[in-house]
Amino acid sequence: MTTGTTDPVPDGSPAEARTAPVPDPAGGRPVLPPHGRVRPLGLAQVSLSGGFWGGRQHANAAATPAHCEAWMERLGWLANFDRVADGTTSPDRPGWSFSDSEVYKLLEALAWETGRTGDPGAQAAIKRLTARIARAQDPDGYLNTCYGHGDQPPRYSDLEMGHELYNTGHLLQAAVARLRTAGEDDLVRVARRAADHVCRTFGEDGLRGICGHPEIEVGLAEFGRALGEERYVEQARLFLDRRGHGTLRDIPLGRAYFQDDIPIRQADAWRGHAVRALYLAAAAVDVAVDLGDAELLRAVERQWERSVARRTYITGGMGSRHQDEGFGEDWELPPDRAYCETCAGVASIMVSWRLHLATGDVRYTDLIERTLYNVIAASPSTDGTAFFYANPLHQRTPGKPAGPGEVSPRAEGGTRAAWFEVSCCPTNVARTLASLGGYLATTDDDGLQIHQYAPCAVRAELPDGRRVAVDVETGYPETGTIRVRVAAGTRSPWTLSLRVPAWADGATVTEDGGTRPVSPGMLAIRRSFRAGEVITLELPMRPRFTWPDPRIDAVRGCVAVERGPEVLCVEGLDLPAPGDLDALVVDPLSEPLPDAAGARVRGRLPARPDRPWAYAAAHPADAEGEWFDVPLRPYHEWARRGPTSMRVWLPASASGTSS
Amino acid sequence: MTTGTTDPVPDGSPAEARTAPVPDPAGGRPVLPPHGRVRPLGLAQVSLSGGFWGGRQHANAAATPAHCEAWMERLGWLANFDRVADGTTSPDRPGWSFSDSEVYKLLEALAWETGRTGDPGAQAAIKRLTARIARAQDPDGYLNTCYGHGDQPPRYSDLEMGHELYNTGHLLQAAVARLRTAGEDDLVRVARRAADHVCRTFGEDGLRGICGHPEIEVGLAEFGRALGEERYVEQARLFLDRRGHGTLRDIPLGRAYFQDDIPIRQADAWRGHAVRALYLAAAAVDVAVDLGDAELLRAVERQWERSVARRTYITGGMGSRHQDEGFGEDWELPPDRAYCETCAGVASIMVSWRLHLATGDVRYTDLIERTLYNVIAASPSTDGTAFFYANPLHQRTPGKPAGPGEVSPRAEGGTRAAWFEVSCCPTNVARTLASLGGYLATTDDDGLQIHQYAPCAVRAELPDGRRVAVDVETGYPETGTIRVRVAAGTRSPWTLSLRVPAWADGATVTEDGGTRPVSPGMLAIRRSFRAGEVITLELPMRPRFTWPDPRIDAVRGCVAVERGPEVLCVEGLDLPAPGDLDALVVDPLSEPLPDAAGARVRGRLPARPDRPWAYAAAHPADAEGEWFDVPLRPYHEWARRGPTSMRVWLPASASGTSS
Repeated sequence: MTTGTTDPVPDGSPAEARTAPVPDPAGGRPVLPPHGRVRPLGLAQVSLSGGFWGGRQHANAAATPAHCEAWMERLGWLANFDRVADGTTSPDRPGWSFSDSEVYKLLEALAWETGRTGDPGAQAAIKRLTARIARAQDPDGYLNTCYGHGDQPPRYSDLEMGHELYNTGHLLQAAVARLRTAGEDDLVRVARRAADHVCRTFGEDGLRGICGHPEIEVGLAEFGRALGEERYVEQARLFLDRRGHGTLRDIPLGRAYFQDDIPIRQADAWRGHAVRALYLAAAAVDVAVDLGDAELLRAVERQWERSVARRTYITGGMGSRHQDEGFGEDWELPPDRAYCETCAGVASIMVSWRLHLATGDVRYTDLIERTLYNVIAASPSTDGTAFFYANPLHQRTPGKPAGPGEVSPRAEGGTRAAWFEVSCCPTNVARTLASLGGYLATTDDDGLQIHQYAPCAVRAELPDGRRVAVDVETGYPETGTIRVRVAAGTRSPWTLSLRVPAWADGATVTEDGGTRPVSPGMLAIRRSFRAGEVITLELPMRPRFTWPDPRIDAVRGCVAVERGPEVLCVEGLDLPAPGDLDALVVDPLSEPLPDAAGARVRGRLPARPDRPWAYAAAHPADAEGEWFDVPLRPYHEWARRGPTSMRVWLPASASGTSS
Repeated sequence: MTTGTTDPVPDGSPAEARTAPVPDPAGGRPVLPPHGRVRPLGLAQVSLSGGFWGGRQHANAAATPAHCEAWMERLGWLANFDRVADGTTSPDRPGWSFSDSEVYKLLEALAWETGRTGDPGAQAAIKRLTARIARAQDPDGYLNTCYGHGDQPPRYSDLEMGHELYNTGHLLQAAVARLRTAGEDDLVRVARRAADHVCRTFGEDGLRGICGHPEIEVGLAEFGRALGEERYVEQARLFLDRRGHGTLRDIPLGRAYFQDDIPIRQADAWRGHAVRALYLAAAAVDVAVDLGDAELLRAVERQWERSVARRTYITGGMGSRHQDEGFGEDWELPPDRAYCETCAGVASIMVSWRLHLATGDVRYTDLIERTLYNVIAASPSTDGTAFFYANPLHQRTPGKPAGPGEVSPRAEGGTRAAWFEVSCCPTNVARTLASLGGYLATTDDDGLQIHQYAPCAVRAELPDGRRVAVDVETGYPETGTIRVRVAAGTRSPWTLSLRVPAWADGATVTEDGGTRPVSPGMLAIRRSFRAGEVITLELPMRPRFTWPDPRIDAVRGCVAVERGPEVLCVEGLDLPAPGDLDALVVDPLSEPLPDAAGARVRGRLPARPDRPWAYAAAHPADAEGEWFDVPLRPYHEWARRGPTSMRVWLPASASGTSS
């Protein structure tokens, strides 16, 4: 599980060699701001080894990139590049205007994989895909398979919905991954030409346009950082500040859909299309940090605060509406029609990670944990070849699986699908799982911070040259015991900080021969450490009830069950009859009990006679039924045993244990 | 208010002359089935005179048709007909593919108006509009401004979303109104040519297509009845039976959107787009009745039962989802995202009226009353020049009014708008209010049934020639006293039936010198009646709490207040501060009290401190606040005093009067 301990290493001397397959200067970090309260560690410093996330990362690496490439080949999304290169574009181009971006997200996933494992298959895939993409690039750097060639509409003729710059943004993110795991190559050169084209076309003296789907901003900012090209960051700022003034044409869903209703510096909450809102917010943090723009940073923090307090599901999921894949208003959080797009979970992590790097505030890494376990982990099938797109908290009728080899035409469904008409989620999951090591730990001037708990080895160097090396051993979240083993002793003190999650009331730490209670927040231990010594954080994993704010109308009178970082749910297939989930009430006065699968609560099934009209002069007094044990399982596991109804929020019986 | 009493008229002799401006053989009936448990009375037999509905009908007549015509002229929807006639169609045709139907619905409204009042302005408008439409008809009867001319796409090239047959269906309904109020004229002749074209094109040996938006079926069936053309009814049957087999291409929203997923004879509930589902159901009743198809009638009744019991709002509103303007699943009835399109209310009345005529079941006329007061009455502004499109039961933030002369691009909003991008509701309201007299009363072999209470005069003839004549005097629903004055005495007995609404527990009837309690259902009084005698139905108008079925997750723990047929609501502008509606809880143990505006309940405003996360380990114990009187007003009146937040379902305080 771990790399074992070693002898003490003198401060400043080289740490033990680790087996990072592609050691590289930027350490395989997805995000690397020039300033900030803490500095991220990347794939070169943090390597996952098994456990909850290691297993998922392995399944992802083994199956998902190949799965995605095969689908895109089959559907002609890859051949779109060949057609541009060969001058054979035609009006029946397959895929949406954003299908290019799926190829780029796949490339990004492959790049992180090569950084993580050096997998030659992934290397070969990158070269293969890059060659096809490079051929499609126009001499001036423009690269898009849907516009500007043959009979296609002209370049930038539909900024609202054309996704041209969105695609380019993902190309730049792929190039960042390549730069930070392998260094400059053809993909990076293609991306540089594309970025230069964007700056020439949309610069201060160019088109005063923006893209209907933010993404170019976050791509430009990080690519600029990776290359030291400040003008890319400046172009990102320009796009940000152009937005919110009705720069784009109005559309039936309104300009809030693409955040062109209010300038980002003035907005109070996220609104409109969730992924758009969150990619934009991520870019805003990047620009704010790079340009020292405290007002902009504060604006994003304010939006995060309001949106997390009032527009976010208990799972961390964001997006209350199917209609526009968008945020709802404050307190509008229906569990059944929750959209909670997997990609919005990815994007939420992008925003929170950037805010955490800037501020060091633990609330951001708390939300990342919640989102990882209850959105990201829910999406992929165990073998990494099928995905949830939407992540509702209540499924009334079991979903219908798509036929084998069938493209799921819709985002809803209640079953994981191999591929979608709009297939943004599979590649987004792939790039996130491949780069997950980059989101676990940070350093500051005095030490190491561990944010997410997974079996892993951390080997880092502080700015003054001190090396810190620990191995994390844990069965988390199945168990709450996290053992941090010091891999290399140090003579001088440094600070080991461990995140105690906000939910972890009753946590303890055992170190240096004693055990003591610790409060949620960052637990900081500053001293010199002996090689081989173990600091044990014990998080309370007893299942617990969680109550919603009374202003969330859609779950009034309900209670949820959580266990550690996992939200639990009841699946209809665990109840006596398929329709029972409509009637189930639980006893909120009997604490949930631990169970191998997750938890058990006391529940019963009041008789619900059919009535011709659902509204009555008296509160219905139904026969209450017998109490029985209701099993709950982690939400991220739902529908893995087959299509089923499901709910997270359970109506609380008014009569409780007294009956 | 009423036409007064007259001397007794001997049975079989002519009743007093009434002032129906256009006496006509079919009596101005919107629906006239050849068989059925009861026979409708039309505008020639029932004339509204003031009161709740008379006032609305008057405002509608005075303003709405002219308003709609002016908007359609301004936007070029009328000129679309001229362009087809003149061969000047161009790719920039204004309006959606269904804009023709708005002209036809306007014509239908105008026709009912001429039948009701003989208004020469309406007559002139009909001639004016008919002339422009007639010029656009192709020699073979095809009539559409969006397809089949010049550069337009070919006829019937997009049956899924092209709305060609939908438009034609509305043309036929307009022609029915014209036939039944004025007789055959150019509009009827145009419609006949269009219907013949449809039968030739889509008959047994023709295209095996159907229209993505049902409406042609209900138009063909009634036009066939009105003309005695059985082949039109047969064509409607053919369309009905073709549907549900995947006859149309799949679309991202799925074939359930246009009810092409399951044959109508097999479906258990309404699903997909609500207006589509309901227009289809209305046609199915027509076809079932005309062809004696008991299986089909039973299928629609079954769908009505399930959908009314589990997929209908307390307002009678239908359509839980914005995404597809559609029904949700069973129990999916969110008040805030309720779509409850005004047109779905119109369509629901169409279905229930047809089912009532077929079966005589009072449940259908009960639902019509609920829908009239809480959907239809809510839509138009007091002056008939602005409309609600969606009718949610909870508005979190006040709507933003459109600028003067501005087309509302979206159906949501919380303020009535003059016109919409998709402007189906204004003309649908207009035709419904203009023909409302046709939905109030029926006859059977032995008497008269009054279903909806409004000041009106009813003059009818029974099949054996007996004449029945009553005047209804009432301030309903402001008061619950309904006085039915016999206008013409009879020597032989007949049955006067009065609907006692399902909600009217404690109703009484006073007649023949005595008062007695009556139960919900049809109160039947069989005897001979003296001219001038009054039968008084007293309905209990005390406001009352109404509780939802516990399976409606979105309103768990809430209670609504109703008064007579009206659902009441709280408007934010009646609370101390704008945001108070988010916190309001009401005391479910203190019965609501009558109030001039509607009702009052005891409520309070618990302090709701801002929390960084909306989910907590303990049920929030907020400071409860002082009890105060919360005013409620009829839902149909909401936002008439200006934009405001609003809610129908009020969270019930758990502590009630004990605190």
